[in-house]
Amino acid sequence: MTALAFLDYASVFIFALTGAFAASRAQLDIVGFVFLASLVGMGGGTIRDLLLDRPPLWITDPTYLGVAAVAAVLVFFLAHLVGSRLRWLVWLDACALSVAVPAGFAVALATGQPWPIVLLMGVVTGTFGGLMRDVVVNDVPVVLVQGELYVTAAAAGGIAGLAALSIGDASFALLICALTTLILRAGSLRFGWCLPTYKSRAPRR
Amino acid sequence: MTALAFLDYASVFIFALTGAFAASRAQLDIVGFVFLASLVGMGGGTIRDLLLDRPPLWITDPTYLGVAAVAAVLVFFLAHLVGSRLRWLVWLDACALSVAVPAGFAVALATGQPWPIVLLMGVVTGTFGGLMRDVVVNDVPVVLVQGELYVTAAAAGGIAGLAALSIGDASFALLICALTTLILRAGSLRFGWCLPTYKSRAPRR
Amino acid sequence: MTALAFLDYASVFIFALTGAFAASRAQLDIVGFVFLASLVGMGGGTIRDLLLDRPPLWITDPTYLGVAAVAAVLVFFLAHLVGSRLRWLVWLDACALSVAVPAGFAVALATGQPWPIVLLMGVVTGTFGGLMRDVVVNDVPVVLVQGELYVTAAAAGGIAGLAALSIGDASFALLICALTTLILRAGSLRFGWCLPTYKSRAPRR
Repeated sequence: MTALAFLDYASVFIFALTGAFAASRAQLDIVGFVFLASLVGMGGGTIRDLLLDRPPLWITDPTYLGVAAVAAVLVFFLAHLVGSRLRWLVWLDACALSVAVPAGFAVALATGQPWPIVLLMGVVTGTFGGLMRDVVVNDVPVVLVQGELYVTAAAAGGIAGLAALSIGDASFALLICALTTLILRAGSLRFGWCLPTYKSRAPRR
Repeated sequence: MTALAFLDYASVFIFALTGAFAASRAQLDIVGFVFLASLVGMGGGTIRDLLLDRPPLWITDPTYLGVAAVAAVLVFFLAHLVGSRLRWLVWLDACALSVAVPAGFAVALATGQPWPIVLLMGVVTGTFGGLMRDVVVNDVPVVLVQGELYVTAAAAGGIAGLAALSIGDASFALLICALTTLILRAGSLRFGWCLPTYKSRAPRR
Repeated sequence: MTALAFLDYASVFIFALTGAFAASRAQLDIVGFVFLASLVGMGGGTIRDLLLDRPPLWITDPTYLGVAAVAAVLVFFLAHLVGSRLRWLVWLDACALSVAVPAGFAVALATGQPWPIVLLMGVVTGTFGGLMRDVVVNDVPVVLVQGELYVTAAAAGGIAGLAALSIGDASFALLICALTTLILRAGSLRFGWCLPTYKSRAPRR
């Protein structure tokens, strides 16, 4: 299995877990779990593939559908064993983000896109699955939560990956991209790292 | 007209009616009715066609736009004659689901997709129009309503259709697919049929 | 720069400004501003391009990403100088609509689509960026605001453009399209112009 295929499988599986946790919070039945897990797990990658005019990952390889379904079934039967499901959702989402950003990055790189597109595809693949999850279940989209690094972590991961490309090969860049995203997102969740947010101010002078 | 074209027209028309009923609940003007009817009527089929890399149905054949517009105008002028508009919306949506699932199923079959994709295309075509309607008007998406068969009815219809393929031809499979979806969805609405939903439980032992 | 490229740049820039104003109301950080500005600025055009099976505008020409980012940065640092940010958002959105409708119209015309598709692409390009903005930040979508001309202004602009095509060239049609959309939308905001909306009535007789 190539690094790219591994990243895609891992990102589908982990995002599918977050979709299934969201389904558990909405108390759906098993098919609802599979539906939401599939939407979240494959949403970001599907949009990436549509934008790059490639066939969606799960049409090329229907195994992805099975991966998402397994994640849904696991959560349906085992979620009561874990503590706070919201906490699991948030931390799994952080892991999913950290593998999906390099997954998008890698595909755009492999298809020879210029660097702004490589960066953007990392961000889109990382964030759109979660965005669709939150819009569908009508939560505040995690990309909009105030005072947290989310899109910022994804973008920083992409930028770090681009920088790493100039001193190493693609695998090294993907590793740096994943680590940067994970560290920033985890640091934001654990220690409250954030960028200054917009505040309406009185005009100076 | 082929069975496929008939299914597509019927599904656009009936989903467009549900979009127009949603527009009537939001008290839009006639152009808003046409907009929402078109979005809901053609949304699921359009996403199916984008995923399968076909031109969207209404670009190949703009008649679909006229079909959606007629549905919108009908509801705008006649909706005050019916009783509960919410009830009509729900039951029309059940009918639309039951023709849209085989419509998606048929297209994926005709383009030679493997069976998991055929199943998924049935579910996507059936559910995404209604999902977009509910997200845009900010209702709880019908796919997420607790204790009802909706995605489950669509998936069961697809599975029944796949099973029917092994003993009959495609038209027979489409009929079985439509009937299974309709019976399960109608039974859920009328008699409360449902699958067990996720409940958080204390860990056993 | 062709008229088409100018319309696309202008529509991306102005819609990106509205996305950034929405980000300021949600008090995001600078990367959140860029994300939302990009989504809103390029959303409508991207959907248009996917539907017409063209590569998305910003993949062909990544300059668009820079245009959206500049709009985001401008609003992040200067929005406190303006009065009501909601008012600015609404009026900028009216301007963006009036350039995005002819931008969609022009692309469909240039690719030789029949007139219903030309009209629809104008409406889709004009409205879907704002629709995505409002769904993501969970506002009432501006396309659904009761008693205002929005989709109606876009559709009327498209129809006026089609009519103008029969007496003039494409540039003239784009101008008429933009002016009609702007006048109707501005008149609706300033003077309350609207079409009769659906009201549930007792059956006559």
